[in-house]
Amino acid sequence: MKATIERATLLKGLSHVQSVVERRNTIPILSNVLIDATADGQLKLMATDLDLQINESVAAAVDQPGATTVSAHTLFDIARKLPEGSQVSLSAAEGKMTIVAGRARFQLGTLPRDDFPVIAEGELPVSFELPAETLKQIIDKTRFAISTEETRYYLNGIFWHVADDGQPVLKAAATDGHRLARVTLPRPDGAEGMPDIIIPRKCVAELRKLLDEIDGSVGVSLSGSKIRFDMGQALLTSKLIDGTFPDYSRVIPTGNDKILKIDPRSFEEGVDRVSTIATEKTRAVKMALDRDKITLSVTSPENGTAAEEVPGDYAAQGFEIGFNSRYLLDILGQIEGDSVEVHLADASAPTLIRENDKSPALYVLMPMRV
Amino acid sequence: MKATIERATLLKGLSHVQSVVERRNTIPILSNVLIDATADGQLKLMATDLDLQINESVAAAVDQPGATTVSAHTLFDIARKLPEGSQVSLSAAEGKMTIVAGRARFQLGTLPRDDFPVIAEGELPVSFELPAETLKQIIDKTRFAISTEETRYYLNGIFWHVADDGQPVLKAAATDGHRLARVTLPRPDGAEGMPDIIIPRKCVAELRKLLDEIDGSVGVSLSGSKIRFDMGQALLTSKLIDGTFPDYSRVIPTGNDKILKIDPRSFEEGVDRVSTIATEKTRAVKMALDRDKITLSVTSPENGTAAEEVPGDYAAQGFEIGFNSRYLLDILGQIEGDSVEVHLADASAPTLIRENDKSPALYVLMPMRV
Repeated sequence: MKATIERATLLKGLSHVQSVVERRNTIPILSNVLIDATADGQLKLMATDLDLQINESVAAAVDQPGATTVSAHTLFDIARKLPEGSQVSLSAAEGKMTIVAGRARFQLGTLPRDDFPVIAEGELPVSFELPAETLKQIIDKTRFAISTEETRYYLNGIFWHVADDGQPVLKAAATDGHRLARVTLPRPDGAEGMPDIIIPRKCVAELRKLLDEIDGSVGVSLSGSKIRFDMGQALLTSKLIDGTFPDYSRVIPTGNDKILKIDPRSFEEGVDRVSTIATEKTRAVKMALDRDKITLSVTSPENGTAAEEVPGDYAAQGFEIGFNSRYLLDILGQIEGDSVEVHLADASAPTLIRENDKSPALYVLMPMRV
Repeated sequence: MKATIERATLLKGLSHVQSVVERRNTIPILSNVLIDATADGQLKLMATDLDLQINESVAAAVDQPGATTVSAHTLFDIARKLPEGSQVSLSAAEGKMTIVAGRARFQLGTLPRDDFPVIAEGELPVSFELPAETLKQIIDKTRFAISTEETRYYLNGIFWHVADDGQPVLKAAATDGHRLARVTLPRPDGAEGMPDIIIPRKCVAELRKLLDEIDGSVGVSLSGSKIRFDMGQALLTSKLIDGTFPDYSRVIPTGNDKILKIDPRSFEEGVDRVSTIATEKTRAVKMALDRDKITLSVTSPENGTAAEEVPGDYAAQGFEIGFNSRYLLDILGQIEGDSVEVHLADASAPTLIRENDKSPALYVLMPMRV
């Protein structure tokens, strides 16, 4: 194998694939990136952690086609430090890859390409397209609610399922038991009959990074156990979480009749300010609702007290309720409009938060005792 | 005590003082900032860790003079989150300080100002002025060599002493036993008879931060046990390290006759690149000197090999020497000109590095076996 490639092109490709590679691996070849120089002038890069696989193609001048595998992080660090604008020559022979650029020369140990594990995709019978922008929104509005509790592995991802809400829809939901985030969008053509799937957190994170560099559409193909995102130069393939996502629709309150309408920015800033006093341990903020007046407050035996009044539209009976300020801020940070609806029942009931009845995103937050 | 102050003014003052306050304190009042509202329209802020004390004055509208102490980090966090442009009212009574800005209201517990420890300066008989720019240079060119070994406490700071090198000079030096950095400047008026002092690392760090906001001159006053830096609005007072700095002049080689002249940027980039291969443990880079050609190389049993040729002026006998790449990069990062001199003797002797024989800064680096 022998090829020459622009440093910037190599760096960009490697930056994508190296991020899939774990820092510590018990299986040595999992630290490596597979580099396949093909006769049609491409370097095909591939990395995997056995659950998630990334394939990326970059243009190169290939003198001699061939493939090998080499440490992904070391090669990335080298490419990062090579002079801007330099041409990088890669050649592999006899268990070594030689990298030459300008006056610098590196030799790295390689492992045979045939030992490199590949995720067998099997058939991916369901396939549809989603605008990159829509996919970003789905992720941004739900990922913060993904559980990090490893014992509840079936909550460690975003749940996708199709349903019929009068019209066919695709729903994406995440929850950690304390809060729930859900986005609903029209079902894309081709998604009919899609199995329920749970996309793991790491796949979501890598996908989100790649989406930052993409306009246009992403091809999504999936079966009950695998999913593939086709972004042109980059292809992300992931195993799905093998578990059953709980029937979350039961925790979405439908009868909450105390409605607060409030400016999300004032609300967010108020919560952020009073929570300065909250300790790392509790993070509880109290909301006292009175006619058109919301008083946010925090009392900490160690630090003191904080209170702030935020104007809002509220006509129902006054009462007090507590929330985890961090969770409330996560949700408010996703509200883009200039008004947010908070649907309350009582101090111990799940609370519904949404921009309005037309907004695709909806949040449920469990209260805290304060 | 009752005063009103612009949020930006309060924030800036607190940002300086809170950085002296340690995150964890066994003595509760050391977490606090002393706030003294004076009749002449100032808030005097003060914080200490018992070794280092900062005093800062900011303009305020004082309704009722008085003083109290309150958690420095909490007050800083509050000020940070208050709306830009807001007026902040501070009032203290009955063991509480009330902070009001806009619709937000905070109450923090206070501790009596009389319990607040003050570093007794005693007499500071030596005093002189240094341009802020000069003080920055002294710090930047030496601080990286300060030892972090707590057992060698007398190396945990920058050593200042006056001497006569044909003309009267002030020298600042730091070393950790592996490398030495020294800056020499003309002795400022008033520094004659100055005792030898060691300025602790934390004082150096806080001083450096404050210097970023300062032009003009800094007043330096000191005795054998204390030093004070007067930067106008801010005053930094520190205990000095009570120990004897070793006679470092003995380790500065004078007879190294193999001279390499090299472009510091090419040298630095070459060292940075080949050290990609070095492991965290050794970080050794080998320099092979040949006529007008320097070959930098690293060999790592785990990662592979790296080599880079860097052109340089070298006419003495060829040989090989090894250095800790991190230490070499620290030094080269301080060389601003387009040429650096490396004075070598042999593979095991201390090496001298300087821009030229007129440069105020000089570095000594111990080699490593490679």
